Amino acid sequence: MAIDPHDLRGELFEFLRIPSISARPEHALDVRDAALWVIGALEAAGLKAELLETEGHPVAFGEWLGAGDHAPTLLIYGHYDVQPPEPVELWTTPPFEPALRDGRIYARGAADNKGQLFIQLKALQEALSRYGSLPVNVLFLADGEEEIASPNLLPLIRAHKDRLSADGVLISDSAMFAPGLPSLLFSLRGMAYFELRVRGVRGDLHSGSYGGAVPNAASCLVGILSTLHDQDGRVAIEGFYDAVADWDAETRAQIRALPFVEQEFMHEAGATCLYGESGYSTIERLWTRPTCEVNGLLSGYTGEGAKTVLPADAMAKLSFRLVSDQDPAHVGDLLRSHVSQYTPPGVEVDVVELAGCRPWRANLEGPFFEAAREALRAGFGVEPVLTGDGASIPIVADLEELLGAQAILMGFALPGANMHAPNEWFPEAHLENGIETLLSFYRELSRQRSEALPPLRG
Amino acid sequence: MAIDPHDLRGELFEFLRIPSISARPEHALDVRDAALWVIGALEAAGLKAELLETEGHPVAFGEWLGAGDHAPTLLIYGHYDVQPPEPVELWTTPPFEPALRDGRIYARGAADNKGQLFIQLKALQEALSRYGSLPVNVLFLADGEEEIASPNLLPLIRAHKDRLSADGVLISDSAMFAPGLPSLLFSLRGMAYFELRVRGVRGDLHSGSYGGAVPNAASCLVGILSTLHDQDGRVAIEGFYDAVADWDAETRAQIRALPFVEQEFMHEAGATCLYGESGYSTIERLWTRPTCEVNGLLSGYTGEGAKTVLPADAMAKLSFRLVSDQDPAHVGDLLRSHVSQYTPPGVEVDVVELAGCRPWRANLEGPFFEAAREALRAGFGVEPVLTGDGASIPIVADLEELLGAQAILMGFALPGANMHAPNEWFPEAHLENGIETLLSFYRELSRQRSEALPPLRG
Repeated sequence: MAIDPHDLRGELFEFLRIPSISARPEHALDVRDAALWVIGALEAAGLKAELLETEGHPVAFGEWLGAGDHAPTLLIYGHYDVQPPEPVELWTTPPFEPALRDGRIYARGAADNKGQLFIQLKALQEALSRYGSLPVNVLFLADGEEEIASPNLLPLIRAHKDRLSADGVLISDSAMFAPGLPSLLFSLRGMAYFELRVRGVRGDLHSGSYGGAVPNAASCLVGILSTLHDQDGRVAIEGFYDAVADWDAETRAQIRALPFVEQEFMHEAGATCLYGESGYSTIERLWTRPTCEVNGLLSGYTGEGAKTVLPADAMAKLSFRLVSDQDPAHVGDLLRSHVSQYTPPGVEVDVVELAGCRPWRANLEGPFFEAAREALRAGFGVEPVLTGDGASIPIVADLEELLGAQAILMGFALPGANMHAPNEWFPEAHLENGIETLLSFYRELSRQRSEALPPLRG
Repeated sequence: MAIDPHDLRGELFEFLRIPSISARPEHALDVRDAALWVIGALEAAGLKAELLETEGHPVAFGEWLGAGDHAPTLLIYGHYDVQPPEPVELWTTPPFEPALRDGRIYARGAADNKGQLFIQLKALQEALSRYGSLPVNVLFLADGEEEIASPNLLPLIRAHKDRLSADGVLISDSAMFAPGLPSLLFSLRGMAYFELRVRGVRGDLHSGSYGGAVPNAASCLVGILSTLHDQDGRVAIEGFYDAVADWDAETRAQIRALPFVEQEFMHEAGATCLYGESGYSTIERLWTRPTCEVNGLLSGYTGEGAKTVLPADAMAKLSFRLVSDQDPAHVGDLLRSHVSQYTPPGVEVDVVELAGCRPWRANLEGPFFEAAREALRAGFGVEPVLTGDGASIPIVADLEELLGAQAILMGFALPGANMHAPNEWFPEAHLENGIETLLSFYRELSRQRSEALPPLRG
């Protein structure tokens, strides 16, 4: 290919050096620098680019409409902001000083999402420079707030709805199933995230002078949380599974056929054993079954040593992953009803909804999906597999609904990429594989288009 | 009496102004200033005084041995250090600017323990100036580290064991049962304080990518903690009650006869209802029954908003109040065994002992106890009641054992004194009542001594 691998890496390293941490106000200018870096790359690729301002960080927007009014439009979505790097002391090399070790590029954002955004940008540049045009119109939307739940993205899309209407949405922000085994996503779990706030007595009390006589907020919280699962690891909230359907036999068979090695998964997770709902394999639990997880606990005294406090307050962060037709608002109602059933006298519990999104299932048909499958085959030399993902990407369902488009999730990271953890990495070889895949994607779309056109009259 | 109440208050205010916060290294010189203030007061009272240095803050020591070798020795124990005042913004007047409002002296240390230590000092001064001598030898031991668990006190006592041997130990560091109702303590609960540290996976994971497939340390902690009580509020650890005996019928009858108003207790605790082991009254639960309380919880994400972390670690502070013959080390063994029984596969739990002390029961007989009872009757004009206390004062049992002495706990604070909270207070009138009580105490000991002596040969 025309681009030199060494230059490719060097250029990505520039992007990775910008600490565009959207969650940190003190990094606002760095976030903007990263947006401007994307603008530069879009222009270098041959797109018309501009910053779209929001109430928060800007969106870096690009468009190439040379395929004409009658051609389909593809919207490429990614993000240029990154997670905070803490705990920094656990990084082998500093998070914003990209380093190549054993074929891996280590840096905050290497996989999530700068490395993959970079592949999209370079593929556009390569395609336009090699072929002079693309078979589809392309819109490029690089979010600066994905890591803080994209609070300004949907309003911006609604405000620019005509300009952003598209037929397909292409997102590279996930991982392949295994090294050498490219994948297309067929599902994402939804999410419902809550904070439980328990208030007992008016203020913290001395546990000697009052212990055994008044309600302890921490114990009450523990009591409530302990009712959320049954002995089989199922969520014990009445009605929780009403909207959950087992997956069809064909998909379950596909899932069973995947080369999943439990020992490797355990190693990657740092787990000494697996756990979960009985009756389902580990992958089935991850992709096709809902969960309830405690994400945080805080109450009373948590410093060094012994302090004999009887806590007046206790807090838990609690989230559910959702599947099938589960709806986050309805899960909230079920949780509230469950919590009030198990709230003992003398305490009050608030259930505050912090985030929510619906589960997503891919449409596995149509020209974009076929082109993606064909492209991965070409880029990696093997037949891609269809895989689910236990995580939630709220924007996928939102973009499909808002734009009336079909989403294609084609990720190039590898399992264990430490996306939100220290020592995040991306395989260097996938820069080229990814660009080759996308070039094939555009070629395949072009072939489809030419087949679909009526033959030239001769 | 000879001391002017106005002077008395002014002198105490001097003492209260010294921010002798033993927990804060930056206040080390203030702590020393408070020790020197006590030395001055001991000398003014007519005792020989000196600072006894330790590896931490010094002990202010005084002695008056004028009663002679054959007279009993009374050791007065108290402390001149105070709790940190935080949260300072909740104080009506600043913690180290003593203020008189509605007959209450407000200041950090007013009740715990400077105000009560001051009463002991002034009573000695008054007795020696009025009578020229005391019926017993007196040792005075003012601790500078009581609020940080007196790490250097027992070594110091062991090092000076001969000099500190005593027959009685008098401590004024507690509260009366109610306004106008003086009390002598007949019991303290013991304590066993632990930290539970649960470790699951190697590091925090993404709750979407791993949720439902690997153990969640926070959920495992919740699971373990939820097994600690049964439906009746009893501690559900096997063997926990083996060393617990119900109190005798007479003491239970005395407890039932106390003018305890549940509504007032609830109001003071800021509780909307009471809670605890069934089958016992609130006071019985507080004084005569053991408890298990969660003092703190920490796991995963506890900041603002939603973070989808699957916690690798979870921590609980957990303490037991002990009664009868319960032993903190044995309770630790029972807890470890219980925890290991409820630890699910894939997680490890450490049970770390942070503090422990045995329960204490008073010896309700003998000349010191009789003198104390008589003195309270004289000082407050009513018959004192015998009361328990749900809290733990480790030093009481330690002093009794180490010195071979009988401890008398005679407190002059009132319920709701905010000893470890903002707006700590002490009733101004109790300065005089307290000094009068102690003068009666010395007079009563003198009367006992003269009765016990053979009649003078005439």
